[in-house]
Amino acid sequence: MSGADIKCYLSEMGRWQPDARGRLEEAALALYLERGFDNTTVAEIAQRAGLTERTFFRYFADKREVLFWGSGMLRELLSKAAIEAPASATPMGAVTAALDAAGAMLQERGQRAKQRQKVIMANPELQERELLKMASLASTLGEALRQRGVGDPVATLTAETGIAVLRVAFARWVEKPTNYHLPELIRESLEQLQAITTTRT
Amino acid sequence: MSGADIKCYLSEMGRWQPDARGRLEEAALALYLERGFDNTTVAEIAQRAGLTERTFFRYFADKREVLFWGSGMLRELLSKAAIEAPASATPMGAVTAALDAAGAMLQERGQRAKQRQKVIMANPELQERELLKMASLASTLGEALRQRGVGDPVATLTAETGIAVLRVAFARWVEKPTNYHLPELIRESLEQLQAITTTRT
Repeated sequence: MSGADIKCYLSEMGRWQPDARGRLEEAALALYLERGFDNTTVAEIAQRAGLTERTFFRYFADKREVLFWGSGMLRELLSKAAIEAPASATPMGAVTAALDAAGAMLQERGQRAKQRQKVIMANPELQERELLKMASLASTLGEALRQRGVGDPVATLTAETGIAVLRVAFARWVEKPTNYHLPELIRESLEQLQAITTTRT
Repeated sequence: MSGADIKCYLSEMGRWQPDARGRLEEAALALYLERGFDNTTVAEIAQRAGLTERTFFRYFADKREVLFWGSGMLRELLSKAAIEAPASATPMGAVTAALDAAGAMLQERGQRAKQRQKVIMANPELQERELLKMASLASTLGEALRQRGVGDPVATLTAETGIAVLRVAFARWVEKPTNYHLPELIRESLEQLQAITTTRT
């Protein structure tokens, strides 16, 4: 680390607030649920979190990003888990590994993931954005399968189906009491999917 | 029919052009493929079709509607076919009936359905709109299953999976020579889906 780097680093440290991101997120979700997303301002979020607007904009580009900053992480996680699944795993086996990883991450986010979902379901514009994010998760997952050597249309079909399973399990989890675990609901949905497709006629 | 009604009717007849909608659609698709959607104007579409702009606006609200006017029909068709499937049909059986109906309609549209897809794939904004339309097809299909007495999460899971199958089969069909039939590709995708889900581990 050069002297200039260290100076820069210490300067960052000075501006750093312990878990400012977390406090801003918590405040934003509470306000979005209380007043609606459209009726909440960045100034109000910062005030509720006991921070300045300037601090808000160091973590988030706008009030919508508070809801969507995790999508990129989720995408990377899904991709990594699918690619790193054992070489012997079937396409659906690799997707299951990816869904397990995503489920564990969302379970870890707990109450915040549930609050976020409620905010999104209350606002058509946010719902549209969420749908597009889900579609991009499916594309990423399909790409991960192709990297494993899975050809199309199987790669796309497996990825799209996997994301449908994630959405359905996630929607159930949001409605359930806290003792339900998302990874288990995902496994249940995968079993239901198998039962559904084998009883086509 | 009253005298006023007849007068009105004849006046409509006078303004009527044989298959003006079809000619406008054909001209629009050709121009969107030649110049791109963004670089085509309604005036150019009307001119290519040998009609006036005023006639264009009697059929379509704007140049985007040329691409999306069929979505409502497709939604109704899917819903009707799923609801009217035999009472003995499983959830996936009812969805299969719906996909058969959708496949037959799109096959009938033939070259135009393929051109439309190419226009959409070339434009991110149109792709977003198409994704949202697809999501609304899945919602409608889920609702049709619930009308058949199918509970959730099975209704949602089956509907979402069915639309994933339709999308994958449709994407394949667009790339294939004209002697491939969409309803057969849909059946193939349904069989693949079954194979995929039964080889999870």
